[in-house]
Amino acid sequence: MSNQSETKHPLKMFALNSNRPLAEKIAAAAGVELGKATIKHFSDGEIAITVDESIRGDDIFLIQSVSDPVNTMLMELMIMVDAVRRASAHSITVVIPYYGYSRADRKARSREPITAKLIASLLEDDGVDRVVTLDLHAAQLQGFFDIPMDHLEATPLLAGYFIDHGLTDNLVVVSPDHAGVSKARRMADLLQTPLAIIDNRDPDKSTTSADAVIGSVDGKNAILVDDIIDTAVRISISAQTLKNAGAKDVYAVATHPVFSKNAVTQMKNSPLKKVIVTDSIQMPESKQFDKLEIISVGNLMGQAIRRIYSEQSVGQLFIR
Amino acid sequence: MSNQSETKHPLKMFALNSNRPLAEKIAAAAGVELGKATIKHFSDGEIAITVDESIRGDDIFLIQSVSDPVNTMLMELMIMVDAVRRASAHSITVVIPYYGYSRADRKARSREPITAKLIASLLEDDGVDRVVTLDLHAAQLQGFFDIPMDHLEATPLLAGYFIDHGLTDNLVVVSPDHAGVSKARRMADLLQTPLAIIDNRDPDKSTTSADAVIGSVDGKNAILVDDIIDTAVRISISAQTLKNAGAKDVYAVATHPVFSKNAVTQMKNSPLKKVIVTDSIQMPESKQFDKLEIISVGNLMGQAIRRIYSEQSVGQLFIR
Amino acid sequence: MSNQSETKHPLKMFALNSNRPLAEKIAAAAGVELGKATIKHFSDGEIAITVDESIRGDDIFLIQSVSDPVNTMLMELMIMVDAVRRASAHSITVVIPYYGYSRADRKARSREPITAKLIASLLEDDGVDRVVTLDLHAAQLQGFFDIPMDHLEATPLLAGYFIDHGLTDNLVVVSPDHAGVSKARRMADLLQTPLAIIDNRDPDKSTTSADAVIGSVDGKNAILVDDIIDTAVRISISAQTLKNAGAKDVYAVATHPVFSKNAVTQMKNSPLKKVIVTDSIQMPESKQFDKLEIISVGNLMGQAIRRIYSEQSVGQLFIR
Amino acid sequence: MSNQSETKHPLKMFALNSNRPLAEKIAAAAGVELGKATIKHFSDGEIAITVDESIRGDDIFLIQSVSDPVNTMLMELMIMVDAVRRASAHSITVVIPYYGYSRADRKARSREPITAKLIASLLEDDGVDRVVTLDLHAAQLQGFFDIPMDHLEATPLLAGYFIDHGLTDNLVVVSPDHAGVSKARRMADLLQTPLAIIDNRDPDKSTTSADAVIGSVDGKNAILVDDIIDTAVRISISAQTLKNAGAKDVYAVATHPVFSKNAVTQMKNSPLKKVIVTDSIQMPESKQFDKLEIISVGNLMGQAIRRIYSEQSVGQLFIR
Amino acid sequence: MSNQSETKHPLKMFALNSNRPLAEKIAAAAGVELGKATIKHFSDGEIAITVDESIRGDDIFLIQSVSDPVNTMLMELMIMVDAVRRASAHSITVVIPYYGYSRADRKARSREPITAKLIASLLEDDGVDRVVTLDLHAAQLQGFFDIPMDHLEATPLLAGYFIDHGLTDNLVVVSPDHAGVSKARRMADLLQTPLAIIDNRDPDKSTTSADAVIGSVDGKNAILVDDIIDTAVRISISAQTLKNAGAKDVYAVATHPVFSKNAVTQMKNSPLKKVIVTDSIQMPESKQFDKLEIISVGNLMGQAIRRIYSEQSVGQLFIR
Amino acid sequence: MSNQSETKHPLKMFALNSNRPLAEKIAAAAGVELGKATIKHFSDGEIAITVDESIRGDDIFLIQSVSDPVNTMLMELMIMVDAVRRASAHSITVVIPYYGYSRADRKARSREPITAKLIASLLEDDGVDRVVTLDLHAAQLQGFFDIPMDHLEATPLLAGYFIDHGLTDNLVVVSPDHAGVSKARRMADLLQTPLAIIDNRDPDKSTTSADAVIGSVDGKNAILVDDIIDTAVRISISAQTLKNAGAKDVYAVATHPVFSKNAVTQMKNSPLKKVIVTDSIQMPESKQFDKLEIISVGNLMGQAIRRIYSEQSVGQLFIR
Repeated sequence: MSNQSETKHPLKMFALNSNRPLAEKIAAAAGVELGKATIKHFSDGEIAITVDESIRGDDIFLIQSVSDPVNTMLMELMIMVDAVRRASAHSITVVIPYYGYSRADRKARSREPITAKLIASLLEDDGVDRVVTLDLHAAQLQGFFDIPMDHLEATPLLAGYFIDHGLTDNLVVVSPDHAGVSKARRMADLLQTPLAIIDNRDPDKSTTSADAVIGSVDGKNAILVDDIIDTAVRISISAQTLKNAGAKDVYAVATHPVFSKNAVTQMKNSPLKKVIVTDSIQMPESKQFDKLEIISVGNLMGQAIRRIYSEQSVGQLFIR
Repeated sequence: MSNQSETKHPLKMFALNSNRPLAEKIAAAAGVELGKATIKHFSDGEIAITVDESIRGDDIFLIQSVSDPVNTMLMELMIMVDAVRRASAHSITVVIPYYGYSRADRKARSREPITAKLIASLLEDDGVDRVVTLDLHAAQLQGFFDIPMDHLEATPLLAGYFIDHGLTDNLVVVSPDHAGVSKARRMADLLQTPLAIIDNRDPDKSTTSADAVIGSVDGKNAILVDDIIDTAVRISISAQTLKNAGAKDVYAVATHPVFSKNAVTQMKNSPLKKVIVTDSIQMPESKQFDKLEIISVGNLMGQAIRRIYSEQSVGQLFIR
Repeated sequence: MSNQSETKHPLKMFALNSNRPLAEKIAAAAGVELGKATIKHFSDGEIAITVDESIRGDDIFLIQSVSDPVNTMLMELMIMVDAVRRASAHSITVVIPYYGYSRADRKARSREPITAKLIASLLEDDGVDRVVTLDLHAAQLQGFFDIPMDHLEATPLLAGYFIDHGLTDNLVVVSPDHAGVSKARRMADLLQTPLAIIDNRDPDKSTTSADAVIGSVDGKNAILVDDIIDTAVRISISAQTLKNAGAKDVYAVATHPVFSKNAVTQMKNSPLKKVIVTDSIQMPESKQFDKLEIISVGNLMGQAIRRIYSEQSVGQLFIR
Repeated sequence: MSNQSETKHPLKMFALNSNRPLAEKIAAAAGVELGKATIKHFSDGEIAITVDESIRGDDIFLIQSVSDPVNTMLMELMIMVDAVRRASAHSITVVIPYYGYSRADRKARSREPITAKLIASLLEDDGVDRVVTLDLHAAQLQGFFDIPMDHLEATPLLAGYFIDHGLTDNLVVVSPDHAGVSKARRMADLLQTPLAIIDNRDPDKSTTSADAVIGSVDGKNAILVDDIIDTAVRISISAQTLKNAGAKDVYAVATHPVFSKNAVTQMKNSPLKKVIVTDSIQMPESKQFDKLEIISVGNLMGQAIRRIYSEQSVGQLFIR
Repeated sequence: MSNQSETKHPLKMFALNSNRPLAEKIAAAAGVELGKATIKHFSDGEIAITVDESIRGDDIFLIQSVSDPVNTMLMELMIMVDAVRRASAHSITVVIPYYGYSRADRKARSREPITAKLIASLLEDDGVDRVVTLDLHAAQLQGFFDIPMDHLEATPLLAGYFIDHGLTDNLVVVSPDHAGVSKARRMADLLQTPLAIIDNRDPDKSTTSADAVIGSVDGKNAILVDDIIDTAVRISISAQTLKNAGAKDVYAVATHPVFSKNAVTQMKNSPLKKVIVTDSIQMPESKQFDKLEIISVGNLMGQAIRRIYSEQSVGQLFIR
Repeated sequence: MSNQSETKHPLKMFALNSNRPLAEKIAAAAGVELGKATIKHFSDGEIAITVDESIRGDDIFLIQSVSDPVNTMLMELMIMVDAVRRASAHSITVVIPYYGYSRADRKARSREPITAKLIASLLEDDGVDRVVTLDLHAAQLQGFFDIPMDHLEATPLLAGYFIDHGLTDNLVVVSPDHAGVSKARRMADLLQTPLAIIDNRDPDKSTTSADAVIGSVDGKNAILVDDIIDTAVRISISAQTLKNAGAKDVYAVATHPVFSKNAVTQMKNSPLKKVIVTDSIQMPESKQFDKLEIISVGNLMGQAIRRIYSEQSVGQLFIR
């Protein structure tokens, strides 16, 4: 861990405001301390940043989830990149545990933006040299960047929860919609289970009819797999649908706990037994509830950064 | 069709070599004649192009599928764009019925290229102003471009085959793998049928076990839906799998008939009743066979170009 | 107003959310109706936009002040530009009555960003063709853009208030600090008055000592001129300073009423007789008070847009 | 000074033709010798450059003031950058003690260029990695660049002249116009003096009326502060104005001695006691005169380069 | 000449300072008047430009040879482009009758610049849309640009001189060096003559040995063909060499009369009978002499511009 | 050869498919082993590449001639660059012994592309940092790139053949056309011989008339010099022409043996005594014949790479 290349350009890591607890875990795992910067938010929303230590010639890693409030967190990141570039950093890597707007990845209808690409372009134009992120909504988002991207995967950590708790018997992994089947397939591979799909023919109508389940879940423990839990409406309805189709325990697993609007109430009132997520998005006390299990990606991301900085391969261990 | 804006910058359309028959259909539907250009291929593979009529100030549409041999067809396109740009065209639209390399849309493993993005970048850097294409492998490819893209859809034409031939009863639409479920979902919506999925747990092993089918196909006529039929191995095995699971007639539907290697033999020998594709890729006589039905996208693309050139909305009619 | 060039590419104007009342005034002055677009804000802050009418080939003007909440309003603008560009607009002009972050126009200390430039770069990279704005904090911000910018000036409108109300006798124009003297000089030219300056030697200390006034204000009516009134601390202290130095009535004039924190209370309690501002930033009812006079820039900006669209010179009338 | 990072990419410094004496002082202060390059000027004005020693992989610093003849000096710099980039330098820093055209920093009227930005863009497009410069006409010029800029400040050196000569009593610092008050304010802070301003209401008319002075100068020694002395008309008139207003000794202080046209005669004949400038622009013998004091910025710039190259912070010592 | 497209975006042509007489001929041939702009040169070399009429939405043609003093003329052009771009021109075409620095088109030795490419890049980055030029030193310079270039040819006009004066008998066309044989070949084709070459084995040594002539010139009238006559040393020695080898009358023909240093004396004293050049570079009275014949390219360039503006093909008439 | 800078970023060299034997010679000369990568060609022409070892932070050299089939070899190179860039290489140098399309370096007629520039732009846009190549068709191609290029020269190696075989007496070097005289001049300098030129007045007509020879070849051994031998028609006719003009032995020398169509038969049947080429293009067994001599550039290129990597000058030894 102390090879020569690490000493040439010092490693400096800074946390912005979206998820400081995770940033501290990442820093600890990478073996560094977080750098000092002052980030002020004025009453009209303007952000002012000063980096409080010299970073001339350093390899800079900036930790920021683009999470609620996403526009502010994004601007914090872009302004920080501007400051760091003008302060003569040697390289700038942005570490984005949760890449907001990632669902806006195509024109679903005429005259829509592709905001996930817009953000990629803005970051590249701002002078970012590399991106590290986690479980993008679609793997194709990698191609939105021309700079190197390390796309980490939390699925093995999430699968580990079931293995660690001896919950591997009689399982079926279920995709809550037709668009996410590949993610469910990956989890099913890790847990060696069959696969089922919930087919919402009318996405505007909430239905819990057992007919909507393609594949067999009767008598099985079901794991609903998604990348993001946002309002939790779909995951909650899906849980009820699975119950109606004969499933025993139903778990929800997702990397990114957006938990917007009434998500917590939705999940509390649903037949879900457990909801397992990561800390890619900071979770306030008020959103925590009994069924919720949070698995940290801090060690994963910290080790990845350490290897990236040391120019060692990260692929073999835990990267797609 | 003769509004003022059409007369300002004349519309000129050129066909390169990948699919001249389709280009002629497109031109006819758009109400123009194909322009004159000389394209020479030398014995070492070098391509020389001369545009044989003045195009100064014109709105140029170049028709080229990036199909076998894909690298040569791509270079033809890029060299033609260079010639047209240097010859002072007012705008350059490339019309790519089949976008080769579209499956290389993400890093599936470490140290892979994202060739679909590379091609997008090369075309943009070459000075292309707009892209018109058809049924991309993943809708996210739209975001690989920053220039406007019109993404046409052949699914309604393909669904039309079944409606026109009175084949709409007792149908099930089947996705041959977990990655293509969204495409199958779209076809199922158009034909108002249920959905099933073939789940290949081990993609390297060809299996026709009925267990691999998620959802019910027994006693139904099944339509396998994919965007591309390449070697036809998967679609043929899938047809047998469906038969083993009790399906009656099995149809294969795809937009892009790559038909490489033994694809024709594979499909001939399979239990497929019909294979319905479009003419997005030119089909030599030698690859045509009894079961094959080819539906032209010439009218669709020609009308789209006419509307694009006239600056009328195309979204409401037939564009996603 | 109906010359031929206007009919070639239709003019479409859209208002985003920061200042719809002004946008409507601008549209009325330009003789068009605001176009239809749906802008949704989700609970985690993500913004989704759909343009609800065809804009293919049109000249688009987007009206948006980058005002409180500035990051959200900026992202609305950038996402809208992305949508409009991908929807094949002929040209995109952003009209920014208040350019937020304009005070972050240089590195005042080491390792600071230059956010005003960052925003210029982001907009250019997003595909904007032209910018129309009003009274930038420093005229040098024009050079942050390489695309054409029309920089409108509200000072004559603001000077007009004093002329219209017969308040032109015995005046002195006062700059509240050493950085804004050029703005005060411009107002003094328009009103043909002498000039004074308040020299805050210690910007962190609020002082109202009459010694701080450079120049003579005794017995005169004073007009404090600034481009932005933000917290109103400085303008209020300056008013008191002028009173202490013998000024009779003291007016405050500024183009952009940010009015953050306790600005309204500050001004109410100050010896200011009147505060004259424009509607470049939307003013909620709660921030209005007796002394406040709001002069609309809607007609100015609408006429400028009309002339820009018609490709007539705007310089001779009211543009620097 | 011999830390490891300095040995990785050798430091090479080259002087172009505008100010070789300063370049030699800078090199001496940085502890290096100037590299060898041949710069030929042909009779039609074409410049041919050959770098006469290998610079492959080196960190290159090019010293050039963009001073009279500014276009030739600028082209020398840009051609040298082209040569150095093609010769595989590791990095290219241009050191521009005097940034010509810096006053063309905004459109003062319609249809004017912003030449200061043009030059910034040309240098960035030419492949420059960093800029070091001194006392820009407006601090906002920093934002004309997206690459890192180190903006050095000569004001403390110039203030030092008065401290070193015991001339700190009974002083007033005077800005010769309303646009330069911030510079005067900075000098007044360093010398702890009051401030006054000369307000030229009609810039086309030369007036020496004592009425033009805002603030009190009677009986004081006055220091006129500007960034550039060009024709010296304004500074000479200002000196007379101050005399008329009762000032005792009048000094002029400026960083950049352009001294064009009759500047020297103007100043000789003026009531100025001393003119204190730096050597940012090379001063021919013919322009030197008794009152003139030249303070070298060679040590300041050389130490800055040494620290930049060593990747140490320069901010804390002498950089804004 | 009055087709509709000409009326959409008005044509405006501006002459900068290098060759106003030619610009006037070009404008006359194109049927327009030169636009009004103020170009000031300050005593330190800075250039200030104001365009004195509205050009919003116009198609702008800027006429400027990059001739002595080349750096100043180049900066005039680039600054004018900046002004015109910021003033909202619809398109910018630069017309460069003489492209200075065109001989710096490759690295002849290590660590040299490629200044001809640098200038191409600077112009493109400055926002130029198209270039019109005349007889580039090497045709490959076309590839230095990615924007459209119309490369006009003066050779037929120059050949016309001999045809018009009945000087076509017993001719031989001679290249004065091995690098310019293609140019001589083109002239020989037009005049249907044989070809000879002067082979300077030692370019540093001036020799007039008849041995240096490859090919037969004895008893013939010889036409020395070059693109540029600079110092005229080579052309004068070549003339003597041809005389020594038995040539009768010797003519020199070149497109671009740089005529630097003692060129005029050289040619006067040489055995050259006539020197035929174009007015691509403005010729002061002092450089004109009896043997000199100047053929104007004004009509050629004016007609080309008229056709470019009208979007008619220029290739068939007089363009390579 | 083992200086410190070599150890910082490991050197990795990869061969693509065009010329693996030469790549192995280059690697051996540079003292490294070729890296491991999997390059698959699918039946429709698509190429898939995986780099099979970590290259994070490494200096990558990719060896690929753009030779038959040129489009495929070019795409292999560009896809590999994409993979290597995304895999976080520190730098990417492409080594192109034969630069296909180099003859398409200008618009010979209206509406032609400049494909040699297109390829340069594509490679730069793909993220290449440096190019190493050999004997470009025109030296001006260096200017098609803005990144550093090392342009190696094989002429001394080819001249060495004659010196090594004692064939230096009574020689004349002959250019087979007027465009290649500079190359012949360089060879004549190295071998200290006179020069002659074959002047094809009608390039479409094959003529072997002795009249076509400019200069004296009677009774001499002639060396025809070209950069590329493609179909060998011209070189074979030229050989016969020289024989007709009285030449004794005739040799052909060229760097790049494209040898397309009937080139081998042409040369076998011609009066050429020997054909001396390099291995810049891989020569299949079937194209080898008795008269053919192949001189390897492997050592030249390997040593150049070693010096480039070590950041030592290469110019003094063997680079133009």
